[in-house]
Amino acid sequence: MSSHLDFYFDFSSPYGYFASTKINDLAQQFGRRVDWHPFSSDTLRPSNTGTSLVQIPAKREYIMKDYVRSAKFLNIPFKVPTVFPLDTRIATRAVMWAEAKFGEDKGILFAQTVFKAYYVDDKNIGDPEAIISLGESIGINPQELREGMSSTYTKEQVRAEIDLAAAKGVFGSPFILLDGESFWGVDRLDQLEAALKAKQTA
Amino acid sequence: MSSHLDFYFDFSSPYGYFASTKINDLAQQFGRRVDWHPFSSDTLRPSNTGTSLVQIPAKREYIMKDYVRSAKFLNIPFKVPTVFPLDTRIATRAVMWAEAKFGEDKGILFAQTVFKAYYVDDKNIGDPEAIISLGESIGINPQELREGMSSTYTKEQVRAEIDLAAAKGVFGSPFILLDGESFWGVDRLDQLEAALKAKQTA
Repeated sequence: MSSHLDFYFDFSSPYGYFASTKINDLAQQFGRRVDWHPFSSDTLRPSNTGTSLVQIPAKREYIMKDYVRSAKFLNIPFKVPTVFPLDTRIATRAVMWAEAKFGEDKGILFAQTVFKAYYVDDKNIGDPEAIISLGESIGINPQELREGMSSTYTKEQVRAEIDLAAAKGVFGSPFILLDGESFWGVDRLDQLEAALKAKQTA
Repeated sequence: MSSHLDFYFDFSSPYGYFASTKINDLAQQFGRRVDWHPFSSDTLRPSNTGTSLVQIPAKREYIMKDYVRSAKFLNIPFKVPTVFPLDTRIATRAVMWAEAKFGEDKGILFAQTVFKAYYVDDKNIGDPEAIISLGESIGINPQELREGMSSTYTKEQVRAEIDLAAAKGVFGSPFILLDGESFWGVDRLDQLEAALKAKQTA
């Protein structure tokens, strides 16, 4: 049995943000660590994802309200960002580069910092300068980050990661893989918990 | 404040079925009755709904497993039907006709009977003869039902109901309206309960 679980998320997904505030504590209760995998759902093939919820007017109106109501229900600080949704490729590259260079813990801290900046402080995380400044706030050298996040190597790594995620069946955010079993949505954290519990007592 | 809430569902939606097993008890705890509104999501305009989950291969594979896991988690008897999904227009017309003729309680009983036939006993509820036989099992005259469910009047009533639902923002199943507020999915029964509670103490 693996000692970790995989957490896939898009920075432009409020439900991904909500899950990000719960997943580490949940996993830890059952002796698991979490591998965080940021990805840009824009870069998944449309045949894998269908139409985004926010592209259909009737659903968009509902979902915008549901974000706010769900945050309140889950007791998570949240404001719909001024620029929403947005392209998360730059943020994804920055976080993946930092994780490769400084390790998983730094990568997670950077991801949490980006989420908070977007959904609490209403920063435009589509702007590379905002991302560099957030990196600096957690001790990452701005010049190194600027170069690292825009290198061909990082772009290829991000591309390879999305192909791997798609091959594993990932099609939305948040998406959690536990020993090959898939859980899609912050609404499935309760079933994830039940699965973790069942494995513990098995 | 209204003393009821509106419950929209498609017979071909397992999540609608799951909600149908909980909604009356939940509403009753807060002194509300439930108006049941069957509808065929096929008859909503695609611009309102986007792509159905089960039409995208990667999602379909996930969802088929999620139905089974969710049923188990929610402790609801369930088997993926042999014919799934299917056209629910006939079942919808039959139940709406029965409700108009015999009242809300009979309509609800008929809807529950159709759900059980489909998701527990694996009956093909797309077949008019199966629907007539289910009606008979709860005391509805087969000849009357056969005529009523295929009458132009019933078809127009079903059409008017779907237009009204779309105008209220309904775009999926299950969908619940509580004093103008929308709740989409069996995953939102917890937030519906919180809203009912807040209204009670307000």
